[in-house]
Order: sequence, then C-alpha cells, then structure tokens
Amino acid sequence: MTVTADVCVLGVGLIGGSLMRALGPDRTFGWNRSAAGAGSATAAGFDVTTDLPTTLRRAAETDALVVVGVPLPALDAVLGAVAEHAPTVALTDVISVKGPVLDAVRRRGLDGRFVGGHPMAGTAHSGWDATDPDLFRGATWLVAADDDADPDTWGRVARLALDCGARVTSATSADHDGAVARISHLGHVLAEALALAGSRGGDLALALAAGSFRDGTRVAGTAPDLVRAICEPNRDALVEVLDECLVDLGAARASLAERGTLGPLVDDGNRARRAYEDAQTDRAGRESRPVEVRPGEAGWLEVLREAGAAGREVTPAG
Amino acid sequence: MTVTADVCVLGVGLIGGSLMRALGPDRTFGWNRSAAGAGSATAAGFDVTTDLPTTLRRAAETDALVVVGVPLPALDAVLGAVAEHAPTVALTDVISVKGPVLDAVRRRGLDGRFVGGHPMAGTAHSGWDATDPDLFRGATWLVAADDDADPDTWGRVARLALDCGARVTSATSADHDGAVARISHLGHVLAEALALAGSRGGDLALALAAGSFRDGTRVAGTAPDLVRAICEPNRDALVEVLDECLVDLGAARASLAERGTLGPLVDDGNRARRAYEDAQTDRAGRESRPVEVRPGEAGWLEVLREAGAAGREVTPAG
Repeated sequence: MTVTADVCVLGVGLIGGSLMRALGPDRTFGWNRSAAGAGSATAAGFDVTTDLPTTLRRAAETDALVVVGVPLPALDAVLGAVAEHAPTVALTDVISVKGPVLDAVRRRGLDGRFVGGHPMAGTAHSGWDATDPDLFRGATWLVAADDDADPDTWGRVARLALDCGARVTSATSADHDGAVARISHLGHVLAEALALAGSRGGDLALALAAGSFRDGTRVAGTAPDLVRAICEPNRDALVEVLDECLVDLGAARASLAERGTLGPLVDDGNRARRAYEDAQTDRAGRESRPVEVRPGEAGWLEVLREAGAAGREVTPAG
Repeated sequence: MTVTADVCVLGVGLIGGSLMRALGPDRTFGWNRSAAGAGSATAAGFDVTTDLPTTLRRAAETDALVVVGVPLPALDAVLGAVAEHAPTVALTDVISVKGPVLDAVRRRGLDGRFVGGHPMAGTAHSGWDATDPDLFRGATWLVAADDDADPDTWGRVARLALDCGARVTSATSADHDGAVARISHLGHVLAEALALAGSRGGDLALALAAGSFRDGTRVAGTAPDLVRAICEPNRDALVEVLDECLVDLGAARASLAERGTLGPLVDDGNRARRAYEDAQTDRAGRESRPVEVRPGEAGWLEVLREAGAAGREVTPAG
C-alpha cells in the first residue's frame, strides 16, 4: 500500500523536524532553507529539499497540510512563496506567537484555510540535530480558535497534534499570546536577569550557586537570537505583564527595605505555584475528559474557547 | 571499639537531620524542639531528645562540635541555652545567612569558638521525613573566614562538611551574604513573581505552562514561612540586588516598548548563564585541586578568602 504524504513541513529545525520524526517519513515531506538542515533530514530518511516552489506545488497537488516551522522573521518570505505557488492549501504553523502570524497570513490573503498552532514544547537547542520524535508527547498543543477559522483545517491540525502524542487545547490567538507572555516570555526575561545578577557576584557567587539558580536560569541558556525571536514579537502582551511584575517586585522591595518583610508576594506566589501543580496533577490524572467538538457545527468556536479558558483538552469528534 | 559521638545537632529538620544521617548514629546526638521530630529521629535509630540543657551539658562534657540547625527566628533562644549550659563548646551553624548569625553569636558572647557554615543544599520540603543522607554529596559548603575565627573549630567544621560528601569553600560572612542574595534569595523572589504572573492568566495559562514555567517557579513551592526565614534576614544585601535587578528589568521593558527589542539583557543573561555552566563544568572535572590551608598559620584567613573569591575549593591540610 502506498501512503500519500499528507503533511508538508517548511523548516525542519527543532519543532518542524521533530514533527516530521513524530509522524515518520511516509506521512511527511518538506523544505528547509539551509542545505545543511535539509541534508541532515535526508540522511535520516526524510524527503526534504531546498526547492521551495517545487515543494509547495507538490503540497498543492496532493492537498497536504502545510506546516510553517520557520522562525517568525522568516515567515513573510515563506508566506509569499505559499501565496505564489500554493495559495489554496490548508495551512498551519508552529511559531510561538499567534497574533503576528495571523496578521501576516491575512496580509498575504492566505487566511481562508489557515488555523494557527503552537506546541508548548522545546529545548534550549535548535536545528535538526536537536530533533526528537517524542518532543510533543504529553505536551499541550494550542490549535487556534479565531473567528472564521476553517473547520476542516482545524480538524486536520488537531489530529496532527494528537498523532504527535500531544494534548490539544484551544483559544483565540490574542488569548494565547496573553497567556504565553505570562508562562513563557516573562520567564525568559526573569531568567536572564537572574543569571546576570548571579554573575555580577563573581566566582564566589557562581561557586555557591545550587539547584535553585540552575533551574531559575535554565532558559537563559537558550541562544539569544532565539529568545528574541520568541519574546519580542509578543511585545504588547509582554510589556503589560512586565509592568505587572515590576509592580509586584517593587512592592516586595519596598516592604523589605521599610518593614523587613517581603510582604504578600511570598504567600501569593506560593499559592500560585500550588495552583499550577494542582493543574498538572489534574492533567496527569486525566480527571477531566477532553471536550469533544465537531468543527463547523454551530457554536463550535465558542465551545473551543470556553474549554481553553477552563484549561481543558479538546478533541475533534468522530 | 566505642566511638564517642563528636557532633551535637540542635534541630533535626531537613538540614540538621540530613547531617545526622550523613554521619550516622555513632558520631551524632542531638536535640529537637518538637517531640514529633525527635520521635522520628529516634525511631530511625538516632539519639535525639527534647531536653536541651541535658543535650548541651553532654556536648560540653565530650567537647562535641555543636551544630545549630534551627531556623533563624529560633536562633537566639537556642544560643541563650548554649550560653547557659555549654558556653565554651565549639560551635557552628547551617543557617542560610551568615552576618545575622554572627551578630547573634557575638551578642551572646559565644564567638570565641564559633565558625559559621552554610551547606548550599536543600529541597522544597522540610522536617525529618525529608532528610537524605546524600543531601550534601557534591554540594558546596561554605565555612566562614571571619576575623578572629578559631582555627581548631574551622578545621572541625571543614572536616564535618567533607565527611558529609560536600566541597568546602570559604569567605567572610558579609561576602557570603552578598553572594547568596544573588544566587539564592533573588531567585526565590523572582520565582514567586513568575508564579503569580502565570496564575493571573487563569486556567488557560496554567494549561499552556511547560518546562520553563515549571523550572522557573520551582522554589515558589517552598513553604512561605521558610522562604521568609531564608530571605528576609539578608535584607540589606537582597534590597541592593533587587534594586539592580529592577533597573535591568526596567531597561528591558522600556527598550521593548519603545524599540521592540529586549536590548542587552538577553545577551548579558546568556553570557552569564554560560559562565555559570563553565564554572559547574570546571568543578565537575575537578580541574583545579582544592587549596590546602593550615588553620591558624599566618595569613590563613587571607588564603581562604582569596580561594573563595576565585570560586575554589579549600581543604584543611594534614
């Protein structure tokens, strides 16, 4: 039996490449800008070229789902090629911010069959050599629920995520971006600041650093260009969250200096961490079954958004 | 052969209890305020009572090294008992801040045979049930090098740390406190702030939270009273470091809002994290042998301080 590859991956770095490996070479083909990356993928048995027009025409002919896995700064050029060579394909992406991607897709007139996505998985490493077929196993994969989303594409993206071993949740692109500013981008900024403060203490401080410093600065080990590509496109949401955080830290600082106590921050932070742990436990125990949704049915986007706001998994019915 | 127990532990919580378990029941005896903790230790085969005067008189009679393992708020009461029942014992502590401990010891007139200590190890849990005989294995244990430190006590504390599997380094209490404000206490404050920011995003944010949020908020899982007991006594150093950090974060925020880039923080933080990783690698590879010191020899405290400032291990000669 011949299996027709139904997923076309553009950019086979950590995320796109791991996606190919999770689905296997029979279901995927792709393109990569650098010959080195394409060569590594080819050597591993995958059909990856550096010829974008040909790859896109193949996707159009076979109605493959096109997954954009390039960093945000390279997005527009890739979308330009999609608009030229495969303007009607079903389209998704795995970029870490959703509003700016949706805007770029709309500017290229490609939003008719576009549904954004974001697998919440990664490492401090990048490129094909860092790929892992199990990268998405147990991870949450956000599949966007924006107005006028194409139901067929939504279902294909959700099944793609499930096939990679991920759990699916959903929200508008704007709500996604507000949430990831809080649980990802702010953490990057704080990790950089903590690492810097530690190193200013010289070799003595680094010699005394133990597990809390190691964990608290881990993501500062991520390549600076990648950190910027992840955080900076989410400027508006991140500035808002940074302002909140600066208020919290300023209040703790003032309280410590004036009254010798860090104030409510310690209790509030501990309560927040326990809420996170409880949410993890609930998910690990799968106490709540995924919310089934029939893409395209009346009110389906509202069902998705409500489920996401409650932190619940969703799954396409049938 | 009868072994005389040479270490008396006051307070058998996570640190004091782990120290007893690392050395074993033949070398240790101790006291605990709560009968529950003492009972757990006794059930595990250790000689731990709730009778502080008797325990201290035994320490004085056998010239045991007394290790104060109570939280800082309980320190002065314990030192009062030491001054009454065992005023001339060799004394150390395992409390996470050193200047305030030294001040309290001096106020009680107990500094003649006192040398402060701080094992850089811990978990988010506390009490005897959380103890681990391997807690200190590979950890750095600071043994203080303050003016007029008693050479004999210094050597005993350093050997105690080595016997627990730790690496020893040294610095003045003031330099220690400045360093731990950077690599421990600031990290606690930032972890609380990150956890709080995440939880303000509701269930969607917590569902999207992945490894970076888990690691960045880990120490926010520590009991609030313990976080305060660790951080707040180091007020002066922590306020100074918080101010530096607020400047760094404020600059990144302004740069992001005005120019769309987080600015130099990302490169500086990444460089700092790599410096930390290099320091860890050097230590793991033991590229530099410990600096040998003969406690009491002319200039020995300067040798200790120089080694500590260079992030090097030290060891008592002979």
